[in-house]
Amino acid sequence: MALSDTFLSELRADLGEANLRTDPAERLTYGYDNSRRQAMPDAVAFLDTHEQAVRLVQRCRAHRVPLIARGRGTNTTGATVPVAGGVVASFERMNRILRIDPDNRLAVVEPGVLNGDLQTALAPHGFFWPPDPTSSPFCSIGGNLACNAAGPRTVKYGSPRENTLGLRAVAGTGEAFRCGVQTSKGATGYDLTRLLIGSEGTLALITEATLKLTPKPSALRTLRATYADVASAARAVARIMAQPVTPCALEFMDGTALKLARDHAGDSVPAAGALLMIEVDGEPDALPGAVEAVSRAARGDGLLDLHAAADAEEAKTLWAARKALSPAQRKLSPHKINEDVVVPVSRLPALVAAVEALAREHELPIVSFGHAGNGNLHVNLLPRDDAELKRAEPCLRKLFETVIALDGTLSGEHGIGLAKRDFMPMALGAQTLELMRGIQRSFDPDGIMNPGKLLP
Amino acid sequence: MALSDTFLSELRADLGEANLRTDPAERLTYGYDNSRRQAMPDAVAFLDTHEQAVRLVQRCRAHRVPLIARGRGTNTTGATVPVAGGVVASFERMNRILRIDPDNRLAVVEPGVLNGDLQTALAPHGFFWPPDPTSSPFCSIGGNLACNAAGPRTVKYGSPRENTLGLRAVAGTGEAFRCGVQTSKGATGYDLTRLLIGSEGTLALITEATLKLTPKPSALRTLRATYADVASAARAVARIMAQPVTPCALEFMDGTALKLARDHAGDSVPAAGALLMIEVDGEPDALPGAVEAVSRAARGDGLLDLHAAADAEEAKTLWAARKALSPAQRKLSPHKINEDVVVPVSRLPALVAAVEALAREHELPIVSFGHAGNGNLHVNLLPRDDAELKRAEPCLRKLFETVIALDGTLSGEHGIGLAKRDFMPMALGAQTLELMRGIQRSFDPDGIMNPGKLLP
Repeated sequence: MALSDTFLSELRADLGEANLRTDPAERLTYGYDNSRRQAMPDAVAFLDTHEQAVRLVQRCRAHRVPLIARGRGTNTTGATVPVAGGVVASFERMNRILRIDPDNRLAVVEPGVLNGDLQTALAPHGFFWPPDPTSSPFCSIGGNLACNAAGPRTVKYGSPRENTLGLRAVAGTGEAFRCGVQTSKGATGYDLTRLLIGSEGTLALITEATLKLTPKPSALRTLRATYADVASAARAVARIMAQPVTPCALEFMDGTALKLARDHAGDSVPAAGALLMIEVDGEPDALPGAVEAVSRAARGDGLLDLHAAADAEEAKTLWAARKALSPAQRKLSPHKINEDVVVPVSRLPALVAAVEALAREHELPIVSFGHAGNGNLHVNLLPRDDAELKRAEPCLRKLFETVIALDGTLSGEHGIGLAKRDFMPMALGAQTLELMRGIQRSFDPDGIMNPGKLLP
Repeated sequence: MALSDTFLSELRADLGEANLRTDPAERLTYGYDNSRRQAMPDAVAFLDTHEQAVRLVQRCRAHRVPLIARGRGTNTTGATVPVAGGVVASFERMNRILRIDPDNRLAVVEPGVLNGDLQTALAPHGFFWPPDPTSSPFCSIGGNLACNAAGPRTVKYGSPRENTLGLRAVAGTGEAFRCGVQTSKGATGYDLTRLLIGSEGTLALITEATLKLTPKPSALRTLRATYADVASAARAVARIMAQPVTPCALEFMDGTALKLARDHAGDSVPAAGALLMIEVDGEPDALPGAVEAVSRAARGDGLLDLHAAADAEEAKTLWAARKALSPAQRKLSPHKINEDVVVPVSRLPALVAAVEALAREHELPIVSFGHAGNGNLHVNLLPRDDAELKRAEPCLRKLFETVIALDGTLSGEHGIGLAKRDFMPMALGAQTLELMRGIQRSFDPDGIMNPGKLLP
């Protein structure tokens, strides 16, 4: 769409000349994200303040221009790709940590703060913010909130929805508002905070967040368990999660993933049918008992080797396989289809078996790994050529059908965006979707907020 | 309002003759709750099934009849009082625990299941559901969800919003829907689950809930600390919450509360300016370290006595003061005004000082006690006669003003209902309230769902 001169000069006046970019080279950079999808925005607005965000939404609404919130574009679903054109609002400059308040276990941040920078700032206070996507050094808190992005620690500490107290935001109506609380509990009206978290910019721009902090446990132990096959490992996951000591990471890699990692990183990566990385944290007194409890549950048919790292250095070595996986996958396939389906933990063995059958049936390399303690598997399809790419599509649909049949859902932590929008009716009933659309209409009556995402 | 014969005979056909009551004696019983407010419903419908709930909402919508969901009426805000008449839908017969699934750490229940009955059923599996209102033996899960009701354990384990995975419900439109997941994480669309939790029956009838279970720690230690004055105790609370070991209960009683309890239960209740009850739980190895960490934080200026119970029997004795408090208050004042304001933990000393000043200024007995670890105080005004009752009203408004000025909010766990509805604009901006109204209209376009509650 062509933006009118009036609109653009209003934006320039509101934001300052330097904060609005319309040159194609700059726009191009803000047209794609980690989904490798792409579309050209008509302008990029760099926001410095909440007040600018308010005016931007009001201008976009008045001119019916699509408005796409963007953190650092690390999402994998195309949630920030401006498919309908319009203005991309980049929050990268709103990156101030406004307050760290250890006494009240909270931090107030602007949305552009990087997850990793926040963790660094919190560490001297003895706290952390639990959500920890793999992209944490370069993804923004605003993006984490928009997608309800999680990570390995979620198994013990929860996702953004469990770790956010309140928000400041601008609805698609152009009205600024605050929601939530600055306290660790509250029962004062509807929970708009959680409603905005995971809404992928389709309801409002988040301009400030009050995050709930968790005290950093003083000690951590890392264990690595290898199994003869994926079924044995999946059963071990279910056993670990059925006993009282919840690990702070319980990561899974299947045999294909291990082989890939080994080819890439060498024989420090064990050869096995499947691998679990297990971490337990807590106060030092408690750790030996916790390690013992988790080890007991990890043992069982099919266990090849269970090893606890002696120190942080060895723990790093044990994580080598997991860390080698991403570059290894990229090497194998430039068309990686990165899924993050989730099933109840006890259905993991069934999911893992189904994925293996799908790989055989569709003659397609598939690796499975991820946050097994939440039943959240990154099932990555790795087509190497056009024929495999073509077979990937029906395979993906079958994967989703399997997941739904196992009482799971489409996304554990990546969100829906463009990539899974059309699969939403498989996961949610027509009435549920209609209620979501009703909420969307009431926050954004003119449909300007990140159109084309999330809802089919 | 008079219900038409057509409407009543439709309801009889849908529900069965025995499940619809219109006799005044029965209606009277379903017209009040623990707020001691009262209004006469025009009919009481006892629901047995989800399908009946769907038909009931559809009938009420077609005839524009108010519909009030009711668990066991233990709430203190008038949230279930049928101020506009209409039909009270009682869920007391939908009290089946449909599934306990320890492997996936979840339970599926009908809304009429009593909180205490669920805990009893979960215990043999080694799990519990964290929300634990004082009324847990006789309050329903549906009511807990409707009000986001919490309790002492929330300080460590969270409220219903952190402990519910998914819901089945009927919106005010008459459409049945499911929302949420059966997994421990999910990023598939808007979070309708948390939106319904705490919505006090104004959006939908909840007909089934999938609850997230927590493993029951094997060991528990109880400590009692007494202080010379409330300020010292409040500072100790802030110190306890600023260190890494989070207690599973951190309860506070001020000197007035202690005196009341002592008059009622005798000198096993200590005489002091303030008291903290502290519980820590975990695996046995971890407890001595946890008790030590919490004790260290509890010590400081003004500490009179710190005592750890040797066993469960002694722990019970230590809790005697807290347990004696409710009957003692009832004895003093038949007009108890029961508030549950919440402030950030570090502002507790200021809140407690302000409450003492309000009691002096308005010449009114006020006791403060409650869930100090969350900054959630039950500030109970205890007017003994009409003059004091009259002074209670401006005192209450000043209390809320103080709480808001301290970055707190109106309710930590009781909700809003009728009692605090008109104070909502003090806590929430006009835009926030308007967004809530927009959501209400989209779930309940004809305004039949618990009219007059929550939103001013």
